[in-house]
Amino acid sequence: MTVEGARPGAHMAAEIAEQPAVLAALRDRQPEIAEVAEAIAKRPPRFALLAARGSSDHAALYAKYLIEVLLGLPAGLVSPSTVTLYGAAPDLRDVLLVTVSQSGGSPDLVEFTESARQQGALTVAVSNTPSSPLSAAAELAVDIGAGQEQAVAATKTYTATLLALYLLVDAVRGGKGADADGLGELAQQALDRSAAGVQRAVDRYRFVNRVITAGRGYSYATALEASLKLAETSYLAARAYSGADLLHGPVAAIDGETAVLALTNRGKGGDAMREVLDAVSGRGADVLAIGSAAADVPAALRIEVPPVAEELAPILDVLPAQSLALGLSLARGGDPDRPRGLNKVTKTR
Amino acid sequence: MTVEGARPGAHMAAEIAEQPAVLAALRDRQPEIAEVAEAIAKRPPRFALLAARGSSDHAALYAKYLIEVLLGLPAGLVSPSTVTLYGAAPDLRDVLLVTVSQSGGSPDLVEFTESARQQGALTVAVSNTPSSPLSAAAELAVDIGAGQEQAVAATKTYTATLLALYLLVDAVRGGKGADADGLGELAQQALDRSAAGVQRAVDRYRFVNRVITAGRGYSYATALEASLKLAETSYLAARAYSGADLLHGPVAAIDGETAVLALTNRGKGGDAMREVLDAVSGRGADVLAIGSAAADVPAALRIEVPPVAEELAPILDVLPAQSLALGLSLARGGDPDRPRGLNKVTKTR
Repeated sequence: MTVEGARPGAHMAAEIAEQPAVLAALRDRQPEIAEVAEAIAKRPPRFALLAARGSSDHAALYAKYLIEVLLGLPAGLVSPSTVTLYGAAPDLRDVLLVTVSQSGGSPDLVEFTESARQQGALTVAVSNTPSSPLSAAAELAVDIGAGQEQAVAATKTYTATLLALYLLVDAVRGGKGADADGLGELAQQALDRSAAGVQRAVDRYRFVNRVITAGRGYSYATALEASLKLAETSYLAARAYSGADLLHGPVAAIDGETAVLALTNRGKGGDAMREVLDAVSGRGADVLAIGSAAADVPAALRIEVPPVAEELAPILDVLPAQSLALGLSLARGGDPDRPRGLNKVTKTR
Repeated sequence: MTVEGARPGAHMAAEIAEQPAVLAALRDRQPEIAEVAEAIAKRPPRFALLAARGSSDHAALYAKYLIEVLLGLPAGLVSPSTVTLYGAAPDLRDVLLVTVSQSGGSPDLVEFTESARQQGALTVAVSNTPSSPLSAAAELAVDIGAGQEQAVAATKTYTATLLALYLLVDAVRGGKGADADGLGELAQQALDRSAAGVQRAVDRYRFVNRVITAGRGYSYATALEASLKLAETSYLAARAYSGADLLHGPVAAIDGETAVLALTNRGKGGDAMREVLDAVSGRGADVLAIGSAAADVPAALRIEVPPVAEELAPILDVLPAQSLALGLSLARGGDPDRPRGLNKVTKTR
């Protein structure tokens, strides 16, 4: 979609709105992803590694949970610098490496993927750029097909990456992505029904200084992504915690001046958030609950999201968080499409 | 050491000061750790997993780099909730699981370790409590021997855990920890020589609102730990980034109002921080450089730390960051020993 770029946040707003269509189209391309899954199933790995940076790192964390829970494989997130800075050459036979990169152009991820392939890993690239160096470096490639992303803050490529990873993992265990049927429509409902709540949240947090995001299980990835989105667009030093870690030391820094964006779905991760919310509410925090179980927890504001299989909740729950980041950025006089000094592809080594 | 608890921060100050002695004593116990390493070398793993929460999670990340670089084994950080919430039962044959917990009492880590052992992993507990449920659950145990920690903010148990993990990994490859010779003395020098710089930093950041910490390679763990320490003790919503990730979206939120605590050692990680520091300095950030290469980078303030093998720099570099967290907490009228509502052992599931 081409957008007149002059209005602040026009790109980000347009790309947030595209997500239902992107997700529906990707769902329909499940058979294509199942072919990659078939190639993986033919060389069954014993361990999985995931490599990514930025928002894609949160998608990789989501996939780590999927792989551990749905496939019963131990999985870990890669630190590319062990190879690119320190020259490590780990033995990667029987290892599946999934590299996740919207652009497919980050040199350290390409280098890590090439090195991993040489070291015996089965390599899969998940990206939005099928012609990218990354897709060329990996043995197998999944195209998330989200179309060009113009805003600096990743939105549609994030949710499309989550769905692509879900469909891939589900297909490895022989599934056809049935739980994702109608996900595009649900995403549209999530955007439509959350709009008023997001606007209230923008008003309420217009002057907030302290934001903490928290989620458990699959939703920890959403907490990280929401926190990064707020930091990138709204000049907020938001911190993300898994609900479990938050109950350790960090809860000390929570008080009546702290907004806590809590992911609360109808699932095991959402259930486990209750003790966390009791603790932060007891300390006076201003809780914004987002998710299908938002109505059931103590909160100052609630944004309900349609229920869906817990594995897919991160795709829907992040939508109001994206809109909140956009809205807060605009309310504070910023332009999320033009943060100073920012490139879409960053060339780290 | 027993400390009269009435003076704010007395426990934390005493435990920071104990670190040279704790590290020297632990260095001398290398042969004991080498026995555990020998048991590991007899059942050589193909993959390593690390499980931890809070500060110990940063120690685990440090160990992940050590294992990947020094042992050439792929390694990943565990998300305990995949097992404890979702009932995942991954196949862990040929897997080394290192569970890191100061108290050894966190129920989810104990449960994860028990489950991993049943699933075939070789399990090692690294803790400060040899009689803990965790040490009982694991097949092998390393006692970091730091003595009781009374302050809520972990300091001496953090650095002792780093050294124990280093000695363990080094012993697996047949080393005797030679690079750690004299580490206790170096730690004393680091504390003594950084005192004036830490005081200047406390003065300078007395009123700061926005703090970002950054490091690359082994020092990324230090960035995370420094950020957590500031958040726990000084009510700062500090965010930590790997230097590589910071150059993606988050650099947008850096300006003249942002303090950047940068880990800059004389090593590959420190070298790779230069482009990061050029970028944040170009945006007007107020850089506090900590490390053996602090003199060589653009910065508003520098705290030099004695040079040491890069793998061990995280043990020294975190010392001034701990003192800074303590000093800022006191300067802001807090008491890091008594953050409200905080328990030393948190029982998450």
